[in-house]
Amino acid sequence: MIYPQAFLSEVQQQRQEFPGLINKVYFNFGGQGTLPRSGLEAIIDAHNFLQQQGPFSLKVNDWITQKVELLRQDIAQELGVEASTITLTENVTAGCNIALWGIDWQEGDRILITDCEHPGIIATVQEIAKRFGVEIDICPILNTLNEGDPVEVIKHHLKPETKLLVLSHLLWNTGQILPLQEISNICHNYSGSGRPILVLADAAQSAGSLPLNLAETGVDFYAFTGHKWFCGPAGVGALYIRPEIFNLLNPTFIGWRGINIDEKGQPIDFKNNGEKFEVATSSYPQYEGLRAAISVHNHWGNAEKRYQQICQLSEYLWQDLSKISAINCLKKSPPKSGLVSFTVDSSMSHKSIVNKLEKQGFLLRTLRDPDCIRACVHYFTLPDEIEQLIKAISLIVSQ
Amino acid sequence: MIYPQAFLSEVQQQRQEFPGLINKVYFNFGGQGTLPRSGLEAIIDAHNFLQQQGPFSLKVNDWITQKVELLRQDIAQELGVEASTITLTENVTAGCNIALWGIDWQEGDRILITDCEHPGIIATVQEIAKRFGVEIDICPILNTLNEGDPVEVIKHHLKPETKLLVLSHLLWNTGQILPLQEISNICHNYSGSGRPILVLADAAQSAGSLPLNLAETGVDFYAFTGHKWFCGPAGVGALYIRPEIFNLLNPTFIGWRGINIDEKGQPIDFKNNGEKFEVATSSYPQYEGLRAAISVHNHWGNAEKRYQQICQLSEYLWQDLSKISAINCLKKSPPKSGLVSFTVDSSMSHKSIVNKLEKQGFLLRTLRDPDCIRACVHYFTLPDEIEQLIKAISLIVSQ
Repeated sequence: MIYPQAFLSEVQQQRQEFPGLINKVYFNFGGQGTLPRSGLEAIIDAHNFLQQQGPFSLKVNDWITQKVELLRQDIAQELGVEASTITLTENVTAGCNIALWGIDWQEGDRILITDCEHPGIIATVQEIAKRFGVEIDICPILNTLNEGDPVEVIKHHLKPETKLLVLSHLLWNTGQILPLQEISNICHNYSGSGRPILVLADAAQSAGSLPLNLAETGVDFYAFTGHKWFCGPAGVGALYIRPEIFNLLNPTFIGWRGINIDEKGQPIDFKNNGEKFEVATSSYPQYEGLRAAISVHNHWGNAEKRYQQICQLSEYLWQDLSKISAINCLKKSPPKSGLVSFTVDSSMSHKSIVNKLEKQGFLLRTLRDPDCIRACVHYFTLPDEIEQLIKAISLIVSQ
Repeated sequence: MIYPQAFLSEVQQQRQEFPGLINKVYFNFGGQGTLPRSGLEAIIDAHNFLQQQGPFSLKVNDWITQKVELLRQDIAQELGVEASTITLTENVTAGCNIALWGIDWQEGDRILITDCEHPGIIATVQEIAKRFGVEIDICPILNTLNEGDPVEVIKHHLKPETKLLVLSHLLWNTGQILPLQEISNICHNYSGSGRPILVLADAAQSAGSLPLNLAETGVDFYAFTGHKWFCGPAGVGALYIRPEIFNLLNPTFIGWRGINIDEKGQPIDFKNNGEKFEVATSSYPQYEGLRAAISVHNHWGNAEKRYQQICQLSEYLWQDLSKISAINCLKKSPPKSGLVSFTVDSSMSHKSIVNKLEKQGFLLRTLRDPDCIRACVHYFTLPDEIEQLIKAISLIVSQ
């Protein structure tokens, strides 16, 4: 893969921002992104500010209020929505839980979930089913990676009692992107029941990697984390709630951040924006770390430019992996995301291969279903890193 | 107040650890504790380690697993319980929510809550009442600060349908300590119903300030945060669950941290210890910050020594405040905790007084009910700081 030198310099310069890229070849952005230098600096600055001006004081409280709103705005801008629709959370799973537990479940309601969801989300859905007498349907979209239509599969599995569809926008195991707008349309206009079916998207892999305009997709809930493709610190995420259904959702875990109080400190009501679902004291310095990380990306290029670059690089990786006879990429055409999953025909298990690669400085991960290895490229991955990985894997599988 | 010089040196030396104490006179430990230097260093070291070895890798995952368990052990040791009883949370409110939403509520059940609880907890209890048809009883213990017996008041308010008592171990508004062991005994042995009444303690003010042996108290749930009296960073807290009732509690917010999965990544069951109620990715560097903070305190002296020191200092503050004619301490005898709440007879509001004090470098806060000012002393507060505060307040109220 040959890049114009000018472009390569631009990428090289951007990479200087990420200490995590220096001493290894990193392909785990879907697990956790590399925190930029300015992200850690922002965290340290925030801690120092808190100690200098507080940590608990009127001045610090004002500062936190301002910074929390700035993060909300920055996130909203990345998603193409209003800041008031954003609830800040600790992670993507917390965001999914807010949506899942906030719906007014009735016995006999049904939840439709794909067969590619994260175990934590499956477990939550199962607990809700148990507690409220809700039924679970699973739609098999794993096999639509190369043929068939996930939209048709989902459509086929909707029932009059279906109240919620749970899916990932970008599947964490195969890297497939689901057409969110089309799916939301079908769910909202499903004629089998008298009510629109709600759509909850686990956006762990899509937020920060795909250019997003959530308002256009019509999705009802979009939960994500800042520590994967946005390269923020672990422990900060968010949930988007479509304004039109905001009042349908009850808060479950509740705290001072989500309520209005009277002059006696008694709760009056819930806040009328995303704060409604926030609980209590968070690691605010980490919020600053995420803001800095988002800013680093945008300084390099907008979400569209970053995404195009990701696709170019993942295609390159996919092509070269496909040339190795012992390797089968799960996807039979170039991926449209940064996730490239593949199996290896070898006497070694995938786990052993990943282990061996990590010892050589190549960081990848295994997945359990399908049993495979996943390599992720970000917009600042170098073609040279991909070439090094290909060589290293080739050597291992030829042994 | 005259301390032996040797002791004063020991305190002065300990204070060097806390940059937040340098440029001001700090009395807001009940809001947030001052993070020790080594706490921030531990946070930075952890971030750097993550970038150097990951951030997502087999090595880092092992490291996180180890560090999480070390924090669980350190916290357990402070509380006098087994590590397996500890669930790590984002804050005290999250811990209360885990307990509140995990109980198998039936219509007609009752929750007894004191009239001194934090608005976030009241709002949660109200939402549970709304969702499950549970009734709320409020017991007036605010007025037992100087006379009367809170135990008797609570006893008087238990009903056959009462399923849970919600109280604070150390009241955030008046600084009163409730006799937890006696109250737990009464609730567990209440003869009015066929089942023991559960006890949930909001320990925001007690954890890190009182010497604790939770196993002895019999309390069922004890929720707290690391960022107040333990002086850890904001965003890390924990919940203790009494092992005997562990299986009674259902997990509500659920994620990968709390479940076991099979070889296909499908959830099998919940973990059989405090992890059951943990959700997903947290700010692990902050965990290291809390561990460092706990270690700093123990290096100076054990919980009993710290508590004795807190009581000596709060008595000193209380005595000198009581000498100012315009000031009324809420408590009519020396406090047994680091919280000293008082009202000021002045043309200025409490808020204006606190505002003015903050501008002079004295950090305190107001409370809404009772309408008062709260000053907190920690074990490393200096008698000289108390004297300075007394002078500053005297000047303000004499104007």
